[in-house]
Amino acid sequence: MSFPFFSKLRHKKEHLKLIKQELQRVRSEIAAQVQEFQPHVQQYMEDICHGHGKMIRPGLVLLTAAATGGIKDEHITFAALLEMVHMASLVHDDVLDKAETRRDRPTPNALWGNELAVLLGDILLAQAMVMGSRIGDTRFTHKMALATRDLCQGEIEQSTRLWDIEMSRADYYEIIRKKTATLFAMAMSGAAMLQNLEDTETADHLHRMGTLLGISYQIYDDCLDLLGIDEAAGKTLGTDAEKGKLTLPMFFLLESSSEDIAAQVREAIENHREVNYAALRHTEGFREAIRLSVNEGLTRNEEAREVLWMLPESPAREALAEMTYRLDEMLQDCCR
Amino acid sequence: MSFPFFSKLRHKKEHLKLIKQELQRVRSEIAAQVQEFQPHVQQYMEDICHGHGKMIRPGLVLLTAAATGGIKDEHITFAALLEMVHMASLVHDDVLDKAETRRDRPTPNALWGNELAVLLGDILLAQAMVMGSRIGDTRFTHKMALATRDLCQGEIEQSTRLWDIEMSRADYYEIIRKKTATLFAMAMSGAAMLQNLEDTETADHLHRMGTLLGISYQIYDDCLDLLGIDEAAGKTLGTDAEKGKLTLPMFFLLESSSEDIAAQVREAIENHREVNYAALRHTEGFREAIRLSVNEGLTRNEEAREVLWMLPESPAREALAEMTYRLDEMLQDCCR
Repeated sequence: MSFPFFSKLRHKKEHLKLIKQELQRVRSEIAAQVQEFQPHVQQYMEDICHGHGKMIRPGLVLLTAAATGGIKDEHITFAALLEMVHMASLVHDDVLDKAETRRDRPTPNALWGNELAVLLGDILLAQAMVMGSRIGDTRFTHKMALATRDLCQGEIEQSTRLWDIEMSRADYYEIIRKKTATLFAMAMSGAAMLQNLEDTETADHLHRMGTLLGISYQIYDDCLDLLGIDEAAGKTLGTDAEKGKLTLPMFFLLESSSEDIAAQVREAIENHREVNYAALRHTEGFREAIRLSVNEGLTRNEEAREVLWMLPESPAREALAEMTYRLDEMLQDCCR
Repeated sequence: MSFPFFSKLRHKKEHLKLIKQELQRVRSEIAAQVQEFQPHVQQYMEDICHGHGKMIRPGLVLLTAAATGGIKDEHITFAALLEMVHMASLVHDDVLDKAETRRDRPTPNALWGNELAVLLGDILLAQAMVMGSRIGDTRFTHKMALATRDLCQGEIEQSTRLWDIEMSRADYYEIIRKKTATLFAMAMSGAAMLQNLEDTETADHLHRMGTLLGISYQIYDDCLDLLGIDEAAGKTLGTDAEKGKLTLPMFFLLESSSEDIAAQVREAIENHREVNYAALRHTEGFREAIRLSVNEGLTRNEEAREVLWMLPESPAREALAEMTYRLDEMLQDCCR
């Protein structure tokens, strides 16, 4: 199996091999979990969990574990359950967004209808709870439950503020911190927590680093959506504007020095109409909005690296740094 | 606040007062949990958790706790979280069933749309996980997670076997055991588990008793739906036949000695058409199907009481027995 995100890291070859081996263990663990469902449910789960995701969250768990004392069996379970919570949220997201493809495959709602997709998301979440409780660490289980709640909270806030021209950039950041960065933060701080370290400070720092990376990643994702780049994501794009989700580059467009563009975007949102971004893409105002958004992401990656340097030097720390540099590149590619 | 289900029990007055006091503590706990959500989410949750349910599951937790050593704070938390998992499943059920009212109030999907209703169900489940992890007993958390998964599994099986004329009565029992009886069983065995009793046998017996009562309760609910009795349930009824859910009285109709009725029902299901049960309701065949279903419920209540007599005599044991007798009455009322 391939791990396209990680293959593009400029790691030393032997490190890359190691990461891929460990990620393969996580994939096997997810496959084993699917076998726990009853036959009736398995057929659907096999399709959902077939594994074409970037595995960024599991990657963060494993590398953080390796950088803070080594990867234990609990980390594999944790990485798998975190990816399953993420998959559950994608399954429900696709229902809400009426998305038809993701990762070059039809979504569960497209394949089997909204009803079944809602239930499949539910059972993925339930199975993640089962796995979490098996780790047998109540402090960890509690933190994981809080993270899941924050994720839902972010989704709800987003869904209640569609087409809301009163929304501010601060509101946007608060929403993506919850809906995306929470699981990134949990990946890193949870991995440290499972080491039973004496100091809780390391976990707190890693929580902050995960938050920064999650926010940066969501900014990247939002830029991609507005750019209508379908290939890389393999999912139905341009849904943000269509659904009335206000994302960072849109805020910059609303504040654009080109009054014509700003007015056009504002008027469309106020009237719950999709802006024709395809027509705007070649304007300087649009490019500027993407550039400013990308910069916000790059700044956060930089801050994330500052946290990272607090850990002792190790190949895993180097690999985590490479992940942030790769994210820099992905953001910069949005400006091309 | 009133607890209509419990008010109808033939308890001694002082017992009834005690049950209501404890149930009131559970309602207060749920209200306190709602306050933990962010303001944006609270407004919806207050409506959902306003509390017009029968509170049967919390009642089972509290009475089982009282019958096995006394009600502890953990039991209140447990009762509240169990009711919240139940509410989460109702919120998603109403989305799947496109139901417009429940308990005489508009459903979340009717009020705020499917998208938000899906997310509100998710966050209720997440908050229940947060509460479960606070109890700090990993064995309990694990059992609760397994119960939640079983619940989802039952819902999925039900949803994939709509209009399925090949379905058997055994399949029906398996589905309702999972989708309904699991939480009843969890209520009773979980309450015993939180007593930290030496013997695990009591918890196992209570698990069995909860399963029996849950199955009986679902049979009652299915009869009610087919009878189109709207008043008692205050929810959109007759949705089972419309959605293609095959329930126990329908199986008896399919096996009915009145070949005319059996053929009519079979033909409708095979063609994914709703049977006009209103027109059938006064036939002897229909009445017989309800009677046979009711008997299946009564038998299970009887078996449940046999388990109950294994507990030491106490007012709480008496109250649990009264709950089973009340369920007998409710079932018998379906034959009137």
